[in-house]
Amino acid sequence: MSSETATDVLDITGWTCPAPLRDQPRIVMGHGGGGTLSAELVQHVFAPAYGGKALAQLGDAAALTLGGARLAFSTDSFVVRPLFFPGGSIGDLAVNGTVNDLAMSGARAAYLSCGFILEEGVETRTVSRVAEALGAAARAAGVEVATGDTKVVEAGHGDGVYINTAGIGLIPDGVDLRPQRVVPGDVVIVSGTIGVHGIAIMSVREGLEFGVEIESDCAALGSLVEAMLAVTPDLHVLRDPTRGGLAASLNEIASASGTGVVLTERALPVPAAVAGACAMLGLDPMYVANEGKLVAFVPREHADAVLEAMRAHPLGRESRIIGEAVAEHPGMVVARTALGGTRVVDMPLGEQLPRIC
Amino acid sequence: MSSETATDVLDITGWTCPAPLRDQPRIVMGHGGGGTLSAELVQHVFAPAYGGKALAQLGDAAALTLGGARLAFSTDSFVVRPLFFPGGSIGDLAVNGTVNDLAMSGARAAYLSCGFILEEGVETRTVSRVAEALGAAARAAGVEVATGDTKVVEAGHGDGVYINTAGIGLIPDGVDLRPQRVVPGDVVIVSGTIGVHGIAIMSVREGLEFGVEIESDCAALGSLVEAMLAVTPDLHVLRDPTRGGLAASLNEIASASGTGVVLTERALPVPAAVAGACAMLGLDPMYVANEGKLVAFVPREHADAVLEAMRAHPLGRESRIIGEAVAEHPGMVVARTALGGTRVVDMPLGEQLPRIC
Repeated sequence: MSSETATDVLDITGWTCPAPLRDQPRIVMGHGGGGTLSAELVQHVFAPAYGGKALAQLGDAAALTLGGARLAFSTDSFVVRPLFFPGGSIGDLAVNGTVNDLAMSGARAAYLSCGFILEEGVETRTVSRVAEALGAAARAAGVEVATGDTKVVEAGHGDGVYINTAGIGLIPDGVDLRPQRVVPGDVVIVSGTIGVHGIAIMSVREGLEFGVEIESDCAALGSLVEAMLAVTPDLHVLRDPTRGGLAASLNEIASASGTGVVLTERALPVPAAVAGACAMLGLDPMYVANEGKLVAFVPREHADAVLEAMRAHPLGRESRIIGEAVAEHPGMVVARTALGGTRVVDMPLGEQLPRIC
Repeated sequence: MSSETATDVLDITGWTCPAPLRDQPRIVMGHGGGGTLSAELVQHVFAPAYGGKALAQLGDAAALTLGGARLAFSTDSFVVRPLFFPGGSIGDLAVNGTVNDLAMSGARAAYLSCGFILEEGVETRTVSRVAEALGAAARAAGVEVATGDTKVVEAGHGDGVYINTAGIGLIPDGVDLRPQRVVPGDVVIVSGTIGVHGIAIMSVREGLEFGVEIESDCAALGSLVEAMLAVTPDLHVLRDPTRGGLAASLNEIASASGTGVVLTERALPVPAAVAGACAMLGLDPMYVANEGKLVAFVPREHADAVLEAMRAHPLGRESRIIGEAVAEHPGMVVARTALGGTRVVDMPLGEQLPRIC
């Protein structure tokens, strides 16, 4: 595919040049989906309001220097429905989501803040169960809940339990993970199967039966990233493909790095149950959220050793190479199909499955 | 008043020994009020779930060491109604609330995270106005919004805009602010008039007219605290009396320090408009929230110099001494009335005015 075509497609997705947001007078669900609409909200509302420096960092864990320490700092709010689902809960997500955001900058999470917004009338034991799940997830991830806050809103103005966590961690010396470091030739590795979390939520929310219960992959990736960085600190970029799935993460990296990305479609690890559910629901597993997976762009010379280290880790046993960064079609992600053709993997506009985290 | 009496009163307030929470099967508005019900939720639900170390720190900015840096870390969620009110907005509160929590540990806020939970259907320009207020407040406070997140919930599951901020800042060497450092003889100073924020919210929410418009005192206190610490790093404890008002802050300090606190009631700086509104509404200004005031326990030998420095600062012009820490009635706050008697200033159970921040 020629780079002219690539540019046309990019204009259509609107990722590198979002359409003016002011044409949308009201917030829609897609503004929270992690795709183009979310990016527009950041670029047209939040970044200009907050000022220039923040613009470069919004949407990722920020890398900061404070008191001589090199810190990663990140936040996420969690509004998942239902609060408990196969394989996890909002409490697990609240820990692992922020721990993973920090891990994608190479930092091992050290401390979390935790703010609850409770709805009047929610059962106290429900709050207790969520808090216990959150505490257990924090202990499993080796992170301490250091500070918290609780607000209550009237019945009908919330949805039981919303949680925000923010996290801080130290970025090790020599580690510099950002899309701008990606170069053509980098190998793209994913740490396991994709699409599992979103389908797990969907199945329980809509009461769908897919023949086999699909459990969320929700997990803390700090120790997996440590194992990868032990091979070489010279990884180029890591992302955890949550809202918007693998497609959103790869498009963000392609756009910010100015390289193209080529995937081998048949290499994508999609479990049969997820593939079946996606076929039934008309979804593409590349756009479905994961909560315990990462995608890495690794210099070619280190790819085999990093892949080996990932496969030796319990959370990376099914790691595999799925593609590479290329000089062609900068900013665009394409997939080579089983039949030998290519198809463009667009940035999603919103989110196919709202409120999955 | 004898210490036996003091102990009886403390048992009644339930602050040092909260009643078992499990008797309350559902969350009520008061659980978010910053009083005894909030404390019970922390002590019976969150602290046990998160583990021992967190227990000591929940409810304040946590003091941490990370990478050799001495950090303060705090979080607050903001659910105020309405979003805009005389003297400020939810955006101002979201910055100043967290900046002030950090300032109370002596830290100048350096970086904020900012998570929005938006309700589907809210006007985009409303979100924009909030973001602009938030950005302006951050610039005024000298803090950078470094990382953010946005979620959207369906119409009817939110209330327009909820915001969580978390903040980190450096604690200067030699500064150690905590209630345990309070000793009998410490002088209690408040930085200005009390009760203004809560009444400002109430007036606009309920459409009440108090003869004169009451504007919120919402402000960032970092520079005032810096001016105080420039006199001496040896301040004992600082608190910003938000939810639960001055009464809740003083009770927390008395309880945690094991000293008593005696206030001179007629020294309390209550503006006439606030006094009038409180009389009309049946409220006590000591229990009404402030968002731009602090209360300090200062060693007697430094009190005059600290007071002078506070009065020289724009946010502390009306600072005054309102009482002292005493050896009598440990853990209890009493006020000397104009008639020469004393009355107990209890810990509030919930919050007289819900959703004021």
